[in-house]
Amino acid sequence: MKTTQVRAYGTASAGRPLEEMTIGRRAVQPHDVEFEILYCGICHSDLHQIKDDFGGTMFPIVPGHEMVGRVTAVGTHVKNFKVGDLAAVGCIVDSCGHCEYCETDLEPFCDEGVTYSFNSPDKILGGATYGGFSKTYVCNEKYVLHMPEFNDLASAAPLLCAGITVYSPLKHWGAAPGKKVGVLGIGGLGHLAIKIAKAMGAEVVVFTTSPSKVEDAKRLGADEAVLSSDDEQMAKYSRKLDFIIDTVSAKHDVNAYLNLLRHDGTVVLVGLPPEPLEIGAFNVVMGRRSFAGSNIGGIAETQEMLDFCYEHNITAESEIISIQNVNTAFERLEKGDVKYRFVIDMASLEN
Amino acid sequence: MKTTQVRAYGTASAGRPLEEMTIGRRAVQPHDVEFEILYCGICHSDLHQIKDDFGGTMFPIVPGHEMVGRVTAVGTHVKNFKVGDLAAVGCIVDSCGHCEYCETDLEPFCDEGVTYSFNSPDKILGGATYGGFSKTYVCNEKYVLHMPEFNDLASAAPLLCAGITVYSPLKHWGAAPGKKVGVLGIGGLGHLAIKIAKAMGAEVVVFTTSPSKVEDAKRLGADEAVLSSDDEQMAKYSRKLDFIIDTVSAKHDVNAYLNLLRHDGTVVLVGLPPEPLEIGAFNVVMGRRSFAGSNIGGIAETQEMLDFCYEHNITAESEIISIQNVNTAFERLEKGDVKYRFVIDMASLEN
Repeated sequence: MKTTQVRAYGTASAGRPLEEMTIGRRAVQPHDVEFEILYCGICHSDLHQIKDDFGGTMFPIVPGHEMVGRVTAVGTHVKNFKVGDLAAVGCIVDSCGHCEYCETDLEPFCDEGVTYSFNSPDKILGGATYGGFSKTYVCNEKYVLHMPEFNDLASAAPLLCAGITVYSPLKHWGAAPGKKVGVLGIGGLGHLAIKIAKAMGAEVVVFTTSPSKVEDAKRLGADEAVLSSDDEQMAKYSRKLDFIIDTVSAKHDVNAYLNLLRHDGTVVLVGLPPEPLEIGAFNVVMGRRSFAGSNIGGIAETQEMLDFCYEHNITAESEIISIQNVNTAFERLEKGDVKYRFVIDMASLEN
Repeated sequence: MKTTQVRAYGTASAGRPLEEMTIGRRAVQPHDVEFEILYCGICHSDLHQIKDDFGGTMFPIVPGHEMVGRVTAVGTHVKNFKVGDLAAVGCIVDSCGHCEYCETDLEPFCDEGVTYSFNSPDKILGGATYGGFSKTYVCNEKYVLHMPEFNDLASAAPLLCAGITVYSPLKHWGAAPGKKVGVLGIGGLGHLAIKIAKAMGAEVVVFTTSPSKVEDAKRLGADEAVLSSDDEQMAKYSRKLDFIIDTVSAKHDVNAYLNLLRHDGTVVLVGLPPEPLEIGAFNVVMGRRSFAGSNIGGIAETQEMLDFCYEHNITAESEIISIQNVNTAFERLEKGDVKYRFVIDMASLEN
């Protein structure tokens, strides 16, 4: 198939810095949308994948899966996008389309497995899919979102992964007026969880290990912020929370948080600690509590989340960088030195 | 308060064999029911408590919390029981009665904590409550169940704890026609889970480490029985089960079972392994799966379970023993050498 060569940033092996490279984007197919990438967020899973933390990274890799852009071409059968529209792509760019999950807007659970926007086998071109640290993206319109006209479009890019990753469980577990929702950890995911849970009407209690983040949590909208090392403060929340979104991606003690749940409550993990987490039997048996996980959302729900965030004026707190600084950004991300999300201004690719 | 001295079996310290002793039962209060204990099941938690496995055992201890008996006296205000009725008491004999949980038939979650039928502070007599390894029991009518006229009354005793411990999560997580339910472990709890899940109409797949129990699982009604050490057989159930009742009370690998769940599926722990269980993040994040726990049920649900089991002719597979053999029974229970529940014929107390 004909491809167009475009500039991108990627790396040829684990541990090597990202550098400029050229990749091929497929010619626009009848159901494809092509867009120029304006902004691309940097997510912790980009870092995991370029370091091959989970194994299985296909090199060379071009990361990036929080893409916002403007449509430059559409296929002959595309009806819902036209050149000049804002568009966005998140984690998923293909799925089987006919299993029970795809048919009910639950593409992440697709029976045949989904194609991710980067580092997945590319069923059309072969090799791996290349992500959003690049000039353009091309994918089937079914996986392209309509991007609302956010005032700060750059800071809206992280919604495509971080946003949906917290929106989906907040909705599934019922964040709403009258509910007391905990947010564990204030980073890229956690700070959006605070804003979205508040916008859904819930009372939000944040738990953090950083004294410096207690005030920040309140600024972000949390009703209360608790230093998790303070046993006395923690005890005040025993059996008080309906559920907790756990955004911590390092090993941590989940049991302390299970005990803050009311009966039938759930700690929902959205981080990906590489080591297993230990759960004491009594902490789930007493109170019929659960430790669950959640991972992004379907395409329809992602659109719903974008529209919800636009309506409630929610974007990520972002530090905008040029692509040439991406390696420094990854170093800082690894140390947790970002409040709260890096976003690449992709125009810098032309510098 | 006046008490009646009755025979019982208990022990004065952890690790010492049970021996005959005399305990005081309170005089029947206006809302009390007194009954002669005909049969009492032996549960793993009796063993844990007499060994003080979880700490906090109040010695001397008289265990036993699966009691079936015949009413010998009722208080002046008791309307629902009369002398000569069959009656039963399980784990809970008191709760605050006015919190949101007590008011909605969820007494196990009582805000002020429940009084268990043994080894709980006795709010009326002081000291500890003494369980069913004894001649009689006296408790408030609210916590006394109406015992249906089972043909095999002795084998129905284990329903009072083992039965409700599996019935409650099977009902809560929706065992029903069209659902595929896993049962992990075939012991006192597991064998009743098979029977009850089948009676609820679910398809039941049993997982066991014992080749000898594969056939037994089918005899008990399981549709399929899988040797969990057989990777090939295990793989066949990947993403196939709606939920799994995990009855294993020793440390074990939960992750292998999380991966057998469909999306939104749950592994429900009803055993109490003393060591924490390790959960890998991916095993819950992928498929929005949960690891939950469950612990007995409320009084109304326990009555419902007894009526359900009577209607479906479900009792435990039991080995009936005399009280003089109780220490041997505990030794065998510790080794898993019972199919599947010991029940004490309490008439033997007169021997």
